[in-house]
Formats: sequence, structure tokens, C-alpha cells
Amino acid sequence: MKKIIILGSTGSIGTQTLDIVSKMGNDISVYGLSVNSNISLLKKQIKKFKPKAVCAGNPQDSVNLKKWLSENKIKTEVFCGAEGLDKLVSAPGADMVAAAMVGAAGLSPVVKAIESGKDVALANKEVLVMAGGEIMRLAEKKNVRILPVDSEHSAIFQCCNGEKKSRIKKIILTASGGPFYKYGKDFSKITVEQALDHPTWKMGKKITVDSATLMNKGLEAIEASVLFGVPIEKIEIVIHPQSIVHSMVEFIDGSVIAQLSNPDMRLPIQYALSYPERVKSNIEPLNLAEKGKLEFYKPDFDRFPCLKLAYCAAKKGFSMPAVMSAANETAVSAFLNKEIRFTDIANIVEKTMKAHKINKSRKIGDFIAADAWARSRALNLINKGKRK
Amino acid sequence: MKKIIILGSTGSIGTQTLDIVSKMGNDISVYGLSVNSNISLLKKQIKKFKPKAVCAGNPQDSVNLKKWLSENKIKTEVFCGAEGLDKLVSAPGADMVAAAMVGAAGLSPVVKAIESGKDVALANKEVLVMAGGEIMRLAEKKNVRILPVDSEHSAIFQCCNGEKKSRIKKIILTASGGPFYKYGKDFSKITVEQALDHPTWKMGKKITVDSATLMNKGLEAIEASVLFGVPIEKIEIVIHPQSIVHSMVEFIDGSVIAQLSNPDMRLPIQYALSYPERVKSNIEPLNLAEKGKLEFYKPDFDRFPCLKLAYCAAKKGFSMPAVMSAANETAVSAFLNKEIRFTDIANIVEKTMKAHKINKSRKIGDFIAADAWARSRALNLINKGKRK
Repeated sequence: MKKIIILGSTGSIGTQTLDIVSKMGNDISVYGLSVNSNISLLKKQIKKFKPKAVCAGNPQDSVNLKKWLSENKIKTEVFCGAEGLDKLVSAPGADMVAAAMVGAAGLSPVVKAIESGKDVALANKEVLVMAGGEIMRLAEKKNVRILPVDSEHSAIFQCCNGEKKSRIKKIILTASGGPFYKYGKDFSKITVEQALDHPTWKMGKKITVDSATLMNKGLEAIEASVLFGVPIEKIEIVIHPQSIVHSMVEFIDGSVIAQLSNPDMRLPIQYALSYPERVKSNIEPLNLAEKGKLEFYKPDFDRFPCLKLAYCAAKKGFSMPAVMSAANETAVSAFLNKEIRFTDIANIVEKTMKAHKINKSRKIGDFIAADAWARSRALNLINKGKRK
Repeated sequence: MKKIIILGSTGSIGTQTLDIVSKMGNDISVYGLSVNSNISLLKKQIKKFKPKAVCAGNPQDSVNLKKWLSENKIKTEVFCGAEGLDKLVSAPGADMVAAAMVGAAGLSPVVKAIESGKDVALANKEVLVMAGGEIMRLAEKKNVRILPVDSEHSAIFQCCNGEKKSRIKKIILTASGGPFYKYGKDFSKITVEQALDHPTWKMGKKITVDSATLMNKGLEAIEASVLFGVPIEKIEIVIHPQSIVHSMVEFIDGSVIAQLSNPDMRLPIQYALSYPERVKSNIEPLNLAEKGKLEFYKPDFDRFPCLKLAYCAAKKGFSMPAVMSAANETAVSAFLNKEIRFTDIANIVEKTMKAHKINKSRKIGDFIAADAWARSRALNLINKGKRK
């Protein structure tokens, strides 16, 4: 039986992961859970899944949690904060870590998980964008698998089944285009509510905004480049509004392999958990004759400058992707707080990138430093904008 | 270096196979060629590919060919007729037989090729339809590969790369729909010229008519069922007019893997020759954004009764698919000779099937006998119709 630790267990991917674990029966069990702040949902999860250990984001929550556990006579160990998280993922009793938390906070626990020899089901884009090369090198050294959890990379992973990586000519990442792909009005007037209304996928807020700016696709292109060892120039994006084809791989003989399904995150999550096996699922079977048609368009790099910034960051390499991603995370957060406009997201990312001096170090700590620098710089730009 | 024997080397698939062999350079060479009657093209092929042996369809041609070879000081051995063909494919110097001839005549040489331990690149549908179960059993026993050459089965084969056959939930065969899928007029008035005008694929005449009646898709469904060990009920057909998605496989977890490319027979031919490797090709790369859309419809079993007949034959099993295929081959030939109407093809197949008493023997000879019986019966029906 596979024993899994789920980081970010109360988020969108985390709860769906637990849902799948409970449906997979005796093939898998929950070893540990971590949350940022949603303690009330964590309590419910503890009752249902009886993990050996959990980790809360802050000391106060962990104290309250310990009290609650003792009152309820539950013997789950409680860790706390970043340090606790590192301890949790290093636990020798677990086989796999599902990294389902959003943002740069995922980097350290993912590194620790790999170092302790665990396979990682990775739903966190930023980790690979920040320090992908190092993560993949470490994973190879430790002989652990990095199993992609988002639909596009899971699709690419499935398309490469039984194929040699050296025979890949091109990766074709599909993008729904988000809510504004055909939007004719002024992008600077786009509200938070409009940006959160994604046409095909139900996801967390940060990733939903990234889908609206297409930064999500830019991050995914960088992630794909790292995961599959393919230069960013060979990663092509195609807009596919139906979100049925989740991505494709073109091989050197001209053959293109694609992975399709109804849009449902449970499929890539389950595939990562069950790999190399496939197990039955409850997702709605695909009926293409019912769908009628699948459409494909060229992406518009001018109307969606975040795409351009992501490719630019990937080409620059080293610390630049970390800076780009951190500036974006900061700007999206400010947009969600209604501190900046939709179009300011790209502006702030671009300005932060322009101000950055690339650091060629490959140390994880230096990627974290670049990330921190970019956040501070981006915050600065946001605050400057507010004072205007 | 792989040494290949090409049966039907002057036909549509045969010439394309030779084209690919010449582009694959030192990876592959031609050991033998066989033709039915196109001796003038065979002579050109002999000059270019210098095969060790060839086989002509009839004694007169083989005598003339020997004379020509001696005059030109070419040391190619000449075989003749069905017996000669069996000798050619049994030659110990070759590794692979490409069965690119059309019709039931392919059965005996394919069996001989497998018996002599050669992999078979199979472009001949009828062989698997006639005696698929036995062919696959023999191939397993002799540990040789049956590599599908048509685009659909090559697609399925590629979609199953690295996957367990037991995890297949369904095979989704795509069909262009042929020239009459949206044809609103009287099907009985369809001319040979109209039937030969296929919208997306350039192929031989027999298969082009089969594509117009959709019998081709019925034969392919039976072939897929045999090749991939999946019951006919799990083979679904979807009309896809663009012929870009060449087929799909749905797995038990709901994930669908598809193979796509511009319609070009050189790709599946090359894949069969290069498998398990992929090598570079000259086919036009797929640009989905340029194509714009891919459409999918339910097939219409009422307007295309040949589809129904094929599924019915597959369900009956034993000698029935051989009878169905032979009656179809006979009827299509009569249609091409303008002896019967387009709609008579299905009528003759149906009547022949209704008159057939299933033979449960699994002997290759009995499948050939069922085939011969069906041809004679169908001819009878055709002649009866003419006398009316």
C-alpha cells in the first residue's frame, strides 16, 4: 500500500486528492497532511483519514490542534511552520508526497521529500519554475519520480509513455484561453470577479487569475521544458477553448500523440497516484460525437504579454524564472486584493524582471533569495502605484 | 540492417513502402518483391532496389522477366504464382514481410511469413478479417510482431505504447466518412467515378470504394478487435471528416490517448518499418491552429448498411467475417466493372451472409474455403441480377 503525504490538503487540489485516495481503497493511504490555515477542514480530514502526522501553518493553530486531538483521543503528531513541514515530508514511513500547495512555499518541502527518497506528485507549478533544473537533477540522483498533477503535464507524461524522450520534436501545450481570449473590451477594466469566472476549469484563485492572463500557460511551458528536458523553443502553445485535448507531443516522424478527456482534475491526480498503473475512475467518459468539434487557435502574445514574459524568462534562465514567477505571485495577490488593475500584473512582472540582475548560482537557497528579492521589488512597485 | 520482402510492391502501399525504404538509408534494404501483373514497374523497382528474389503473378510474366533479367545481367531469382509467393516469404535471408497486396490472396503468404519467423507489416485488412484469431495465435506462438500499416491501426498501436492491453476500455476508430457522408441524393445512383473521389486519402480502388460504403471501417473494426484482443462491442466508430485524428484508445481511468497527423500513409508505413524506433520523416508537420477545427459525428448505420453487416459478421465470428469480406470484395469488383449499383454492394454481402452456414473450424484452409464459397455465391447473385 502506497502511503502519501498531502501538502495543502484543504485547497482545491488537496481536497480532490483526498477524494481520490478514499476511492482508491486499499491501494493507498494517507500518512500526513499539511495546511496553511484552514484548521476546521483539517480536523474533518484527520477524523476521516487518520493520518500519522499533520502540519499547521502557524504555532497558535498547532497548539489548538494538539488540544483538540488530545480531547478527541486521536494520536496524530502535529508539526508547525516551514520547519515542521520539512520534518513531515522527511518522515521515513511515507512513499510519496503530493505537493498541492500554491506558490514558492512548496520549494523547500519538495526538495526535502526528494532528498528523503519519496516520489513527488507535483501540482505546484512554481517549484519547477523557480528551480526546475535543480529539482530534476536531484530527483534523478535520488532515483525518485516527479509525477505531474496538472492536466497538461499529465497529458504530456501520458503521451510519452513507452516513447524515447530523444524522439520528441515538439511539445504542444493546449490552453483554454481563459475567460478573455475573445474579450473585445478594455483589459485594464477587467474586474476580479470577471477574472475568476473561468470557462472550463474550477480551480484555486491564484491559478484562475493566471489562466486569465495566460501566465498560467507561460508557467506551464517553463514547467514542461524542465520536466521533459525539452528547450522552451520546442514548447508550442495552442488555444483550445474546449479543454478536451490536454496537450500533445509531436515526435520526429511527424506523429502527434494527444491525451484527451472531459476537463476533470481528478484524472491527472489519480494518474499520478496510481502510476504506472491505471485504475478505474468515476470521471464522465468522453463522447466526442456529442462534443461535435474541437477548435484550435494561435495564441496572441501581444494581448497576453504574460506569455511573452514567461518565454523570455525561460530563455534567460538561471534566477530569471524564479523572479518572474515571484513577481507574478505578488502582483496577482495585489490584483485579488483590488490594489492593482488586471493589466498591471504584466507591467509589474516586466518591471521586476527588467530590474533583476541574473544570478547564475544553482543553489536552492539562491533561487529562494531571487524569489524573495522579486517579491519585495514587486511589492514596492505595487505600493508606488498606489501612492500615485 | 532490416531486410524486407514487399508483397504487392507496385500497388499504392507497395510503392510508398519502397519510397520510405529508400529514404531510410542503411537501416533497411529490400530482399524481395512480389507483384500481381505490373511487370514494367517491377522492372524499374528491380533496377533500383536490387532484390535477391521477386515473384510474378503468372508463368508467362515470370518467363519474360527471367529473360529480361538475364539480358540485363541482374541476378535476381524469379518465383511465380501462389506457390512461388510462399517460397519467397519463407526465404531465411529476410526479417520482415510487408503484406501490401489487397484481398484474400494475402492470407497464405502471411501465414508462411509468420511460420518462418518473420515480423509482418500488415496493410492487408482481409487477412485479419478472414482468419485473424488464427493469425494472432500463430504470431504469438512464433513470437513475431504483426505491425499494422493502415493509419487507424497504427494509431491504436501507437496509443497503446507503454500501456497494458488489459487497461483498454474502448477503442475509438475514426472514419473520414468518405465522399457520401453528407450526400443527400439517391445512393443507388452513385457512379464509380463518384465513389473513387475520396475527400482525404489517395488509395487503391477497392479500398476507396470500401471507404465510400464505410465497409472499410467495418473491416477495420474487425481488424482492430483481432489485433488488439478487444471484443467488437468495445470498438466504437466516430466520423471525423478531417482525417487528422487517426484513432483513439480510452483507458479504464477515462483517459483517451489519440494519434494525430496530416493524412499521409507514409507515416504508418514508416512506423511499421522502423518500430520500435521512430525516425525522421518528410511528412508535413501538423499545424492544428491552421486547421482550426476537428469535427466528430456519430456514424449512421442505417444509411451505411455495410457497417452493420461488418459488426454482425464479427459477432457471429468463425467463418462469417471471411464470408462477409469475400462477398464484399466480389461485389466491389462488380461495382467497379459497372455490373451492379453502389447500393447492391451491401445487398449482395447481406444475401451471401444470410445463405452461409457457419463453419466452426479454426483451420486456415477452412477460412479459405469459406472465402471461396462466398465469392462463388456472390458472383451468382451478381449474375442473377444481370439477367433480370
